[in-house]
Amino acid sequence: MEIDIGNALDSVATPGVSRATLERLDGRVADAHARIEAGLDGRDHGYAALALPETADPDAIQAAVDPIDCETLLVVGIGGSALGAATVADTLDLDIEVHTLDNVDPAHTRELLDSLDLSRTAIHVVSRSGTTAETLANFLVAREAMDAAGVDWTERTLVTTGQAGNLRNLAERHDLPALDVPTGVPGRFSALSTVALPAAALGGGDVEALLAGARSEAESLSGSLFETPAYAYGATSYALAQRGWRVNAMMPYAESLETFAEWFAQLWAESLGKEGVGQLPARALGATDQHSQLQLYRAGPRNAMVTLVRPRDRPDLPIPETDLEGLSYLGGASLGGLLDAEFEATEASLAAAGRPSIRVELERVDAHGLGELLYGMEAACILAGELFSIPTFEQPAVEWGKRAARGLLGGGEFEEARAVEEKTRLLID
Amino acid sequence: MEIDIGNALDSVATPGVSRATLERLDGRVADAHARIEAGLDGRDHGYAALALPETADPDAIQAAVDPIDCETLLVVGIGGSALGAATVADTLDLDIEVHTLDNVDPAHTRELLDSLDLSRTAIHVVSRSGTTAETLANFLVAREAMDAAGVDWTERTLVTTGQAGNLRNLAERHDLPALDVPTGVPGRFSALSTVALPAAALGGGDVEALLAGARSEAESLSGSLFETPAYAYGATSYALAQRGWRVNAMMPYAESLETFAEWFAQLWAESLGKEGVGQLPARALGATDQHSQLQLYRAGPRNAMVTLVRPRDRPDLPIPETDLEGLSYLGGASLGGLLDAEFEATEASLAAAGRPSIRVELERVDAHGLGELLYGMEAACILAGELFSIPTFEQPAVEWGKRAARGLLGGGEFEEARAVEEKTRLLID
Repeated sequence: MEIDIGNALDSVATPGVSRATLERLDGRVADAHARIEAGLDGRDHGYAALALPETADPDAIQAAVDPIDCETLLVVGIGGSALGAATVADTLDLDIEVHTLDNVDPAHTRELLDSLDLSRTAIHVVSRSGTTAETLANFLVAREAMDAAGVDWTERTLVTTGQAGNLRNLAERHDLPALDVPTGVPGRFSALSTVALPAAALGGGDVEALLAGARSEAESLSGSLFETPAYAYGATSYALAQRGWRVNAMMPYAESLETFAEWFAQLWAESLGKEGVGQLPARALGATDQHSQLQLYRAGPRNAMVTLVRPRDRPDLPIPETDLEGLSYLGGASLGGLLDAEFEATEASLAAAGRPSIRVELERVDAHGLGELLYGMEAACILAGELFSIPTFEQPAVEWGKRAARGLLGGGEFEEARAVEEKTRLLID
Repeated sequence: MEIDIGNALDSVATPGVSRATLERLDGRVADAHARIEAGLDGRDHGYAALALPETADPDAIQAAVDPIDCETLLVVGIGGSALGAATVADTLDLDIEVHTLDNVDPAHTRELLDSLDLSRTAIHVVSRSGTTAETLANFLVAREAMDAAGVDWTERTLVTTGQAGNLRNLAERHDLPALDVPTGVPGRFSALSTVALPAAALGGGDVEALLAGARSEAESLSGSLFETPAYAYGATSYALAQRGWRVNAMMPYAESLETFAEWFAQLWAESLGKEGVGQLPARALGATDQHSQLQLYRAGPRNAMVTLVRPRDRPDLPIPETDLEGLSYLGGASLGGLLDAEFEATEASLAAAGRPSIRVELERVDAHGLGELLYGMEAACILAGELFSIPTFEQPAVEWGKRAARGLLGGGEFEEARAVEEKTRLLID
């Protein structure tokens, strides 16, 4: 993973980051890196995520999925228990179809279950606590659908969960293959583990290459942002946020990285969005969103930096010659050439308007490249959390709503549920 | 469409909108409505979009698609030429599969074309000018793929374009069914026209109900935000943006409206994001993003209002009874009940943190409801544009990049292409 922060400098963006600021920041990066390294060595909560390329056990994952024969995998989870697997599945070229049940929309759940050949479908249910309401509700519904179709769900269900709890008990009762969630790793940092890798292993993806890509980023971590692509990204994003760029539009120029942008959005929002600080991640896609979001990024409120991601090498497709008026320049070009020209044009267009962007380049969109990108962004996020001085690995603000929802559903007495009843209304109909 | 702005009031949100401000704003809404109505009556550029429920000709659209027999539709367009059709297709229950080719990623285009039975596929190519580089490049590639598969593309291609230009000439040369783009309607406002309705017509969708839903919103337009749901939404979003809420997270609680959020993101970004004003649209999905974005919306920078959309009525799905520990409260509930509890809990959770939200409710997610939503949001956007005093229907900031890309591809001499060469670099690798 290569990072180019040239277009975040104050010679380009207004406001931007001066070279002097980067030098000053580098001292804080050195301190932060020392804390990160100590946390990593001690396998402290959260920091343990950065050890996953070493601690993940691909053989155990392979052994867990080996007995399962399927054409389709249904991942049942939500948030960090689903986005990693979805990203891996949408980025790599797997030989199974992977669907994610990460919402509790009855119309969608029903339609999806109806569309699958359940006798050729496996379920991977993922919940650290084993009590996540959305995940367990969907699992109960999916299991019942298999029962109704005469399919033995116990032969086709794989579990990833904590060492105790509902799902662990269920796995033991029915002798299901069960993997442990990694210790000390919050869901959004768990892609390189038993949470997301089973999807790749089941579909013949190159798990070793994914971990090798992550390891190559791990090896690049150092006490200087000028030596560490991940830290250059994290520190520059932090400095831009401090200067008012409170939105980070993640815009990969590769369709297969669209889900990666969603994964990044969770990582960035839930880790950094606390105590009034952080940066709101906007999910975008190049070149498509040039015809949707670019007008705003370039000329709207001065609050959005843009992260432009692309591979250096793509499978290519020539554009046929044409006699269409004014389009002959396209003939002989290729779709990839067009996409790359648009990437560079968008980057220059933002720069010409004084809007900051950061370029992220991978060699290829493949297992190795994805491993670099996932690990690199996790390290960038952890560094940014250190610089913001916030508890990166907590997510306290989501608890309130969970209690309210549980109260509304009759799952106990919760004060928060009463606030729902007392809503202020001003209806226009 | 019913709008509840209670949680945007200053008794809930900090900063919020006072009732006195709403009263003052209502005077400006009356003036803006007078301009909108005059523009609509005169079919002026942009405002003409609000006449589409009357001027659209469903019979002509039906006649154009009638000769085409297909199982799959490939919409080739980008931005406003694709998002309307994608939204209609993903929201309604159509009897064809609809794919969109709205990017120039060679890997994706190749994979998609390879996955289709081209002999059962129709193409709808949409470009007002007939020269949009991405669209024409994809069309040339798709046409060649049909040729290579021995499929006569001229029997399976429908065109929507302007009255002159490449695509018009092509349609005439090959006797293709060709529909006119509506006059005076920018792409992002063209969903209720020949641009997006052919997808619905081909797939047996209820085009009349879609237009009827839009008409019911059109009939509600009046000189007061207190009488007009669309204006209540537009005026309140404007007032919140002026108070620092420069992000609008569009969060439908219905999977089938996920693409609607993308359509909205283009409408809102490209129409309002200019001259330093506007509001950045963030695409979200309930309940999924409660486990991804909610932490940030509730506790991150005070810059994001949230729009919560839901239907009052959903097809439902009971959650099976369970003896899983601590989850018995779910048994006997339903997925829809769980989703609605989460909707209300999230809304209350934002309010408890002083973060503004607006509730949008539809009777149902169906053709009528979608018509209300599309038209309502267009009217809201046009009103907000009047209040911001910006040229809602232009998108000047995207031209720079188009010229740069064209120059890079050898399509002429453009100064902007030189800026690409002169990029400021600061590489970390």
